[in-house]
Amino acid sequence: MSRILDHARRELDEFGPVKFNIMRVIEESGVSKSSVYHHFGGRDGVISAVEVQRLIDERMANNALLAQILASVNSGEECLDVIEAGLRAASNATGRKNRSHRIAIVAAAQHIPVLTESLAQESRIADIALTEMLNGARDRGLINPTESVEDIARYMATMFIGRSALDTFESEEFDAAWIRMSMGVLRGFLQPSPSKKSEN
Amino acid sequence: MSRILDHARRELDEFGPVKFNIMRVIEESGVSKSSVYHHFGGRDGVISAVEVQRLIDERMANNALLAQILASVNSGEECLDVIEAGLRAASNATGRKNRSHRIAIVAAAQHIPVLTESLAQESRIADIALTEMLNGARDRGLINPTESVEDIARYMATMFIGRSALDTFESEEFDAAWIRMSMGVLRGFLQPSPSKKSEN
Repeated sequence: MSRILDHARRELDEFGPVKFNIMRVIEESGVSKSSVYHHFGGRDGVISAVEVQRLIDERMANNALLAQILASVNSGEECLDVIEAGLRAASNATGRKNRSHRIAIVAAAQHIPVLTESLAQESRIADIALTEMLNGARDRGLINPTESVEDIARYMATMFIGRSALDTFESEEFDAAWIRMSMGVLRGFLQPSPSKKSEN
Repeated sequence: MSRILDHARRELDEFGPVKFNIMRVIEESGVSKSSVYHHFGGRDGVISAVEVQRLIDERMANNALLAQILASVNSGEECLDVIEAGLRAASNATGRKNRSHRIAIVAAAQHIPVLTESLAQESRIADIALTEMLNGARDRGLINPTESVEDIARYMATMFIGRSALDTFESEEFDAAWIRMSMGVLRGFLQPSPSKKSEN
């Protein structure tokens, strides 16, 4: 099915969702029409599948960036600063748009089993990546987690999704309160070590 | 617009979303077709509007129930027990279905301004109701909040929405960890008083 998605992605980039022509994609990919309809339920399902794929790529890129940044910090406080900077960066209209786009994709995927599975798979991969980062920080003595690192990684994922509940208000004040309180929550779970130079 | 929604609700109850006939609803309600299309964008928008309305009714009923229960407790610990019982009650398949249904409604409403506004209004009303309950508990000396009660009420709303990020795993273990950690977070923000008999 990855062949059809490659072609669908190109079609979507070139023509956009309104002029997206599923028959052209099927012809170009050489995949059978019945197989495409069986897997994705039709045109909208194929578009959703491309969006899910993009979401996964984006998340992987973000995780790689975060891992790189975290590897360069030397204290738990710096870890928290990096996380807080990330949360602040997602405070603007673009961050809100990304969250609402994500909810639209999740909702569209709900009735297409192959997409539900892709999204679940995406969550698992993202949670594992975050778990590994937190494990790395713990092994370097930067944080002293009060809960299992897997549970904290999954909890952080629920916090980030929950933030979308505030987006409808478009209020900087509410969002700032959410960041402040979330940092308190993370501080409680992660127990950062105070700033000090690395001994490496 | 409440007249069209009353009729649409009855139509939906009787015929379901597939056989829902928007022309019949328009005729029976006596509202002009152009006005319905202007406000809701069409058939799907009217169905979404009914679902938003149901969500609001449900939330109001839940809040009323919670207020009644909270009025009868005599300590902060009992307050937290009531909240935890509520979270556990929403652990099953029905709870998951309600959360995924909610996400579908929010996503459908995103492109219909009148529904976005209804949902924002719903959130405000729910947040105010929760704020009033927490204020009541604080005034009775049951909790000693570390943050403004409004901020805590909004934060709780983001926590509950975020829980949906776990539903895709259908894992009782993950959900139990979320409840345990969330109760720790709430305990931190609410600072419940220890159990004691009310002095009233």
